[in-house]
Amino acid sequence: MSEHANNFSRRVPAGDDRDRLVCDDCGFVVYENPKIVVGAVVHLGERIVLCRRAIPPRLGYWTLPAGYLELGESPEAGARREAWEEARADIEIEQLLGVYSIERISQVQLIYRACLRNPHVEAGPESAEVALFRWEEIPWAEIAFPSVNWALGHFRETRAQTTFPPRRNPEGATGSMRQEV
Amino acid sequence: MSEHANNFSRRVPAGDDRDRLVCDDCGFVVYENPKIVVGAVVHLGERIVLCRRAIPPRLGYWTLPAGYLELGESPEAGARREAWEEARADIEIEQLLGVYSIERISQVQLIYRACLRNPHVEAGPESAEVALFRWEEIPWAEIAFPSVNWALGHFRETRAQTTFPPRRNPEGATGSMRQEV
Repeated sequence: MSEHANNFSRRVPAGDDRDRLVCDDCGFVVYENPKIVVGAVVHLGERIVLCRRAIPPRLGYWTLPAGYLELGESPEAGARREAWEEARADIEIEQLLGVYSIERISQVQLIYRACLRNPHVEAGPESAEVALFRWEEIPWAEIAFPSVNWALGHFRETRAQTTFPPRRNPEGATGSMRQEV
Repeated sequence: MSEHANNFSRRVPAGDDRDRLVCDDCGFVVYENPKIVVGAVVHLGERIVLCRRAIPPRLGYWTLPAGYLELGESPEAGARREAWEEARADIEIEQLLGVYSIERISQVQLIYRACLRNPHVEAGPESAEVALFRWEEIPWAEIAFPSVNWALGHFRETRAQTTFPPRRNPEGATGSMRQEV
């Protein structure tokens, strides 16, 4: 919610139990809820697609193709769109790999396992570079976010399985940049 | 977003590719994204918890304990909170049962399989009644939403499995009330 809605204040509406943004004139309540990030660990044979960020935060660090789910879009369609936008990758979703919760920033990440439908990748406007890495080539010291590490680890852990339950945050891990990798 | 933010208009911000709500004075962009509903198919032995809705929409119809994920809350914690708020049910999450996408209303539902930690249930403020049903006792003609039917079916389908990938919308099903059950 923007700072420009001048007649809104934070209070508990009738029948509710937590602070909301309420219009002082008419009582209209603006509900603010967590946002969904969708993305994929995309593989081609033994290699995994990573994108080097051309935008903040963590400019210059490597990440998975991922971003905010848009209105009217399914999570799978969103993950496919992000792979195209950030890596010009045409992907096929295989399975939900992880559901990660970054509570500090009210974000739920739905990360899929997917394969490249053809070997072409190329940097989209938000990427400085896109590359395919074998496991031992992954630039671990330059990974953008803790949840990228989680997803890569969970991908490797489930690589030989055809069906598995999606993984969650590692025990005790919150996704904070200060706490962990 | 409310109707009361008078200096916002819908246009494509620089570097973006879709309409956003943009402040005409300063260029601030309000991003609107899908909301997350969290809930659970809660079982006790062979019985399943359903709540009869005391509020619109679908007042008087039966549903799962479920609702909007709140800021700063993990999906599992949200599903536990909703079970408590709507059915006074103390639940233990077992596994993610379904990820359902209702694109028409930009909603992603994360529905868990959970068990009751004790047999007590009771109507919370948004429920007219809470009851435990055996499969053959479920009031199928009075189910509130298509995705409740999906989750119940997926629960039964995976009942004997200890690990399984979460289910998605049935093929072609959009969650529209007019299209299907």
